[in-house]
Amino acid sequence: MKVGVVGGSGYVGGELLRILLQHEKVDVVYATSRKYSGEYVFRVHPNLRGLTDLQFTDPSAEQIASNCDLVFTAVPHGESVKVMPRLIESGLKVIDLSADFRLRNPEDYEKWYGYKHPYPELLKRFVYGVPELYRDEIRNTRFVACPGCMAVTSILALAPFVKADLIDRKHIVVDSKIGSSGGGTKPTLGTHHAERYGVIRPYKPVGHRHTAEIEQELSLLANEKVVVSMSPHAVNIVRGILCTIHTYPKRQITVPEVWKTLRGFYKEEPFIRFVRDRKGLYRYPDPKVVVGSNFCDIGFELDEHANRLVLLSATDNLMKGAAGSAVQCMNVMAGFDERAGLKVGGLHPV
Amino acid sequence: MKVGVVGGSGYVGGELLRILLQHEKVDVVYATSRKYSGEYVFRVHPNLRGLTDLQFTDPSAEQIASNCDLVFTAVPHGESVKVMPRLIESGLKVIDLSADFRLRNPEDYEKWYGYKHPYPELLKRFVYGVPELYRDEIRNTRFVACPGCMAVTSILALAPFVKADLIDRKHIVVDSKIGSSGGGTKPTLGTHHAERYGVIRPYKPVGHRHTAEIEQELSLLANEKVVVSMSPHAVNIVRGILCTIHTYPKRQITVPEVWKTLRGFYKEEPFIRFVRDRKGLYRYPDPKVVVGSNFCDIGFELDEHANRLVLLSATDNLMKGAAGSAVQCMNVMAGFDERAGLKVGGLHPV
Amino acid sequence: MKVGVVGGSGYVGGELLRILLQHEKVDVVYATSRKYSGEYVFRVHPNLRGLTDLQFTDPSAEQIASNCDLVFTAVPHGESVKVMPRLIESGLKVIDLSADFRLRNPEDYEKWYGYKHPYPELLKRFVYGVPELYRDEIRNTRFVACPGCMAVTSILALAPFVKADLIDRKHIVVDSKIGSSGGGTKPTLGTHHAERYGVIRPYKPVGHRHTAEIEQELSLLANEKVVVSMSPHAVNIVRGILCTIHTYPKRQITVPEVWKTLRGFYKEEPFIRFVRDRKGLYRYPDPKVVVGSNFCDIGFELDEHANRLVLLSATDNLMKGAAGSAVQCMNVMAGFDERAGLKVGGLHPV
Amino acid sequence: MKVGVVGGSGYVGGELLRILLQHEKVDVVYATSRKYSGEYVFRVHPNLRGLTDLQFTDPSAEQIASNCDLVFTAVPHGESVKVMPRLIESGLKVIDLSADFRLRNPEDYEKWYGYKHPYPELLKRFVYGVPELYRDEIRNTRFVACPGCMAVTSILALAPFVKADLIDRKHIVVDSKIGSSGGGTKPTLGTHHAERYGVIRPYKPVGHRHTAEIEQELSLLANEKVVVSMSPHAVNIVRGILCTIHTYPKRQITVPEVWKTLRGFYKEEPFIRFVRDRKGLYRYPDPKVVVGSNFCDIGFELDEHANRLVLLSATDNLMKGAAGSAVQCMNVMAGFDERAGLKVGGLHPV
Repeated sequence: MKVGVVGGSGYVGGELLRILLQHEKVDVVYATSRKYSGEYVFRVHPNLRGLTDLQFTDPSAEQIASNCDLVFTAVPHGESVKVMPRLIESGLKVIDLSADFRLRNPEDYEKWYGYKHPYPELLKRFVYGVPELYRDEIRNTRFVACPGCMAVTSILALAPFVKADLIDRKHIVVDSKIGSSGGGTKPTLGTHHAERYGVIRPYKPVGHRHTAEIEQELSLLANEKVVVSMSPHAVNIVRGILCTIHTYPKRQITVPEVWKTLRGFYKEEPFIRFVRDRKGLYRYPDPKVVVGSNFCDIGFELDEHANRLVLLSATDNLMKGAAGSAVQCMNVMAGFDERAGLKVGGLHPV
Repeated sequence: MKVGVVGGSGYVGGELLRILLQHEKVDVVYATSRKYSGEYVFRVHPNLRGLTDLQFTDPSAEQIASNCDLVFTAVPHGESVKVMPRLIESGLKVIDLSADFRLRNPEDYEKWYGYKHPYPELLKRFVYGVPELYRDEIRNTRFVACPGCMAVTSILALAPFVKADLIDRKHIVVDSKIGSSGGGTKPTLGTHHAERYGVIRPYKPVGHRHTAEIEQELSLLANEKVVVSMSPHAVNIVRGILCTIHTYPKRQITVPEVWKTLRGFYKEEPFIRFVRDRKGLYRYPDPKVVVGSNFCDIGFELDEHANRLVLLSATDNLMKGAAGSAVQCMNVMAGFDERAGLKVGGLHPV
Repeated sequence: MKVGVVGGSGYVGGELLRILLQHEKVDVVYATSRKYSGEYVFRVHPNLRGLTDLQFTDPSAEQIASNCDLVFTAVPHGESVKVMPRLIESGLKVIDLSADFRLRNPEDYEKWYGYKHPYPELLKRFVYGVPELYRDEIRNTRFVACPGCMAVTSILALAPFVKADLIDRKHIVVDSKIGSSGGGTKPTLGTHHAERYGVIRPYKPVGHRHTAEIEQELSLLANEKVVVSMSPHAVNIVRGILCTIHTYPKRQITVPEVWKTLRGFYKEEPFIRFVRDRKGLYRYPDPKVVVGSNFCDIGFELDEHANRLVLLSATDNLMKGAAGSAVQCMNVMAGFDERAGLKVGGLHPV
Repeated sequence: MKVGVVGGSGYVGGELLRILLQHEKVDVVYATSRKYSGEYVFRVHPNLRGLTDLQFTDPSAEQIASNCDLVFTAVPHGESVKVMPRLIESGLKVIDLSADFRLRNPEDYEKWYGYKHPYPELLKRFVYGVPELYRDEIRNTRFVACPGCMAVTSILALAPFVKADLIDRKHIVVDSKIGSSGGGTKPTLGTHHAERYGVIRPYKPVGHRHTAEIEQELSLLANEKVVVSMSPHAVNIVRGILCTIHTYPKRQITVPEVWKTLRGFYKEEPFIRFVRDRKGLYRYPDPKVVVGSNFCDIGFELDEHANRLVLLSATDNLMKGAAGSAVQCMNVMAGFDERAGLKVGGLHPV
């Protein structure tokens, strides 16, 4: 299959290229970048030196359509929506990694993103790119909107329990911790190493946009409005997310019941791992262990004292949180082995 | 005043020595250590090289009592309780930094620490070492039990709101993040740099012992049982704590009301800073900024969407979270300027 | 091919397992560990969770020989030498990752390692595991001794220039910087996160053992004694080595001449990359870029002012510095594609 | 004494303010900043929150002269030289922290900085701000040019041995490692946390400008041209420098001789510490230990094998490498206790 990566110079674009260049069923035809057009890809993504001679280009939508079957759009929010109509018209399959097509309700864009969505009618054509929830829909669509990194990490932990109606839907706290690569490639004072190193920085304690996605998906599973209390924090790593999710069971539940809920929901999912051991150093999810892999590790603990169910989920924000999920969706759409290109585990120690 | 530091070779002991050796009103007579007796202090605390020729010694309780007015006990939980009776009998003033005398109810030791307290009658003689709550009691006592590092950081943020009866007392989530120095000096696989670096490790998602202290103090302020949902995480720094505290107001409250509650409660506290700016990189509390100082920075945000009040508090776990609080208590007990020895701010950047 | 990993619980053992479990031509029959025998491999190497059900075992040399074609020995120095005679007698092929068979001259073990080698006659049966220098010998041997991590990183940068007799052989400074994984899995005060984080620690400014290997190999290339001045430093990362090698050309040389020397020596080596760009952030070797890959990146700069040639080389100490080199040697010995199992590049950013 | 800090918003400016605001003999009249004029100092230097109400201002040279006795200029290279003539004419004492007045020979500015110095006649009026070398001259001057951070760290280690003519003056390798604060406050792709974290980045393997200062000072001590081979590296910390200096003794020397050379040269220097212990974790200089302090730690090791003397020196680049040295010079100029404002040691662990 011939694919293009629109917006190939960012961190998500780079990660897509890293995976796709090694994917046996895929030819990467384009890595587009206005800024770096004509430059070798490996100058921007130095890990790819010696692995590819690909150069960035700046083709038109028509050129992309003529030469590709499927395109990944890894451009910033607000940019994706501009190029999408032409890409869609051209007959291409599109996997979008921006936020522009994640929300089903156009009004949510006004509330959470502060802008009026210019193509509200397109929203319903996109499937939310979480194969664990929408595998069949992804198989049958041409358009996928990949989830936000913290959104997918939260949703995958919460979905089984919301679906099973086990937890209080008004007191769901998502306290997430994320590395610096989640903020993209643009240098600012806030990302300056001397300022960003060693922080535990609450960067959007209320009103984070991923809340909208999480509530959308959980409410669909619950068939009623779910309210999420989300607070993300920047911590001193580059890759990785941990979501600590504090929930309150509606009734007394037991550890075996939690296990049953998780296992019943996920069965044989290739990229979900349950992590809750009695011993060992990594007996709960920890992003250190998933760096470079497409796994979402999920664990939990029951707090009898406070009648609380703590859910823990960890991903690599650039993999399961972005490029990995996107390739997983591509595999589903194309009928490939869903694990193709994504079989690699993390590194340890790293 | 002549002081001794019992347990001078740990991180809290070292921090006490760093402060006390520069304190104008204090002579450090003893830094005790069984393991390092006879060794120069600066070999264990290399930052003190050139600043002191003090050596570790291993004196008896009687020797300490003969030569000191006040003693800091910075030994592990379970050790402090063994030496305390003799220290108390000797007429010394004691500031204890272990957990052995923090809880007023002996049964709490069985519940949270798993052991039967051998001297339950001593518990009521200790004042909980938070001058912001117990300044008068500290002034008039001979025995202070300094709080746990995550406990004091949480309590200081929550106290005004619990006291004012503004928040739901059954849904208080304390999600804390802490550096590696909080775990002490003993090397284990879990603290091995290759394993500990880069983690976001949930290390006690439920059942953390500091919960007991937090609930004790908040319940006293509330005059009814307060339940706390606490989950600490190890992150990739050495010093510092951030507590993100998710609470649910009982009724709709406003930002000015939050400010008024905070300011009314704390007035002119020398080590409480309010941090909530409209702009700037450090507009919320961040432990990066308090490293080496005795400040507890407190901030907040109101979440209208989820009807939530997020409280944020940051300390240096070895300072306001341990040695700094202890010296602050000593200053109060001795009638010194409460800020003596603690006037130094943090470093930036670091 | 059926292989075993003797000493599978250390960092090098874990990295061997990570690679070999995905290697299409290889079956991993044994991962041995006395300490963890019976335990799942993924409990020690958490990145392998979900990727293998292998358990650690503790087989005899005879069992290994009966069930394997080739064995990797990834045990500490001094341990390897004990098990080697039986492994060799059993007819197995052996790739050793300890230091016990790297040096050709038994007296060097007394000088640098402080012990008398018990089987000096075995030393000459081992080939030094650097395919870039000994590819033919490796193809035809049964016994390979993989190089030390800092040794191979230094040797690969220096070999072309020593061979070409371009540099002063008495003033070669190897100033290396290495992450904490190079020190193995054993926790000590020196590896305790609170002590090891943020250091730039000279840990063996003179007399480091890898000097012996570097001098051995360079002297063979030079046909005269080469003296190396080596000083390693522990820095605040987990994986990676940078060697900054300060040399003094015997005569005035030019940049094209340096390029010609490098390219002439290495031609089409699959794991050597030259990194010296005019622009870009990663225009010199930097271990950040090779983490997880088997590349050795080599760069240089000419200092006209001081008549100096600075060589720079970067590797992942667990990959090209250990497990990666070992698998590369196995591929050569077995006639596989030399890149099998090692095609993956690094991650960026990480 | 009334002082001003011209360029108060950078990292060196912030560190000057931190020290000076606590200095008992000093009133800080101005912290100047064009960009932040009118803003509270603590918004830029968040560690000073609660410690000062000072605001940035943008006064004229005349205003500064009218209200101050002494001014620190902590502006970038090329900026300092522009404002200096007016400051000098105004009768102020000036301590400059830029590179603009460090070099005595105007031609060195063309060679190393690529520009023609506009006021070559001013160069000879400045004393190089290293009290350990120029205490008397500093006491009697109005103008001090503080050294570069890596320069002073190197010079202090090398001076005794160059002065004593013990080492080969053509083979002096200064391999330095430095944290990100050394690069100032300006965000770039190279300082972006995701790119800068975890690197060991050779950023100027040849031709670094501090070479000029080091050679200047060493040549003066030697009475002949000394050539220095300098290569700095960016490593994953914020503060601190380690210089590993590889030298070759002219004749065989002994450890006692090295000690005697060091002690004879430095005698009772308040900010020089010798660090070379037989045991302990910090038995060589390590910047981790000096963070926040004005110490320069110096150690060494003799390499009999390669006939090498390795010198090791560590500083906090913002303290002894900049602001600390500047305040030390001020103390000398003003006749204060040389340690005033600088008595604080480092933090451990940090």
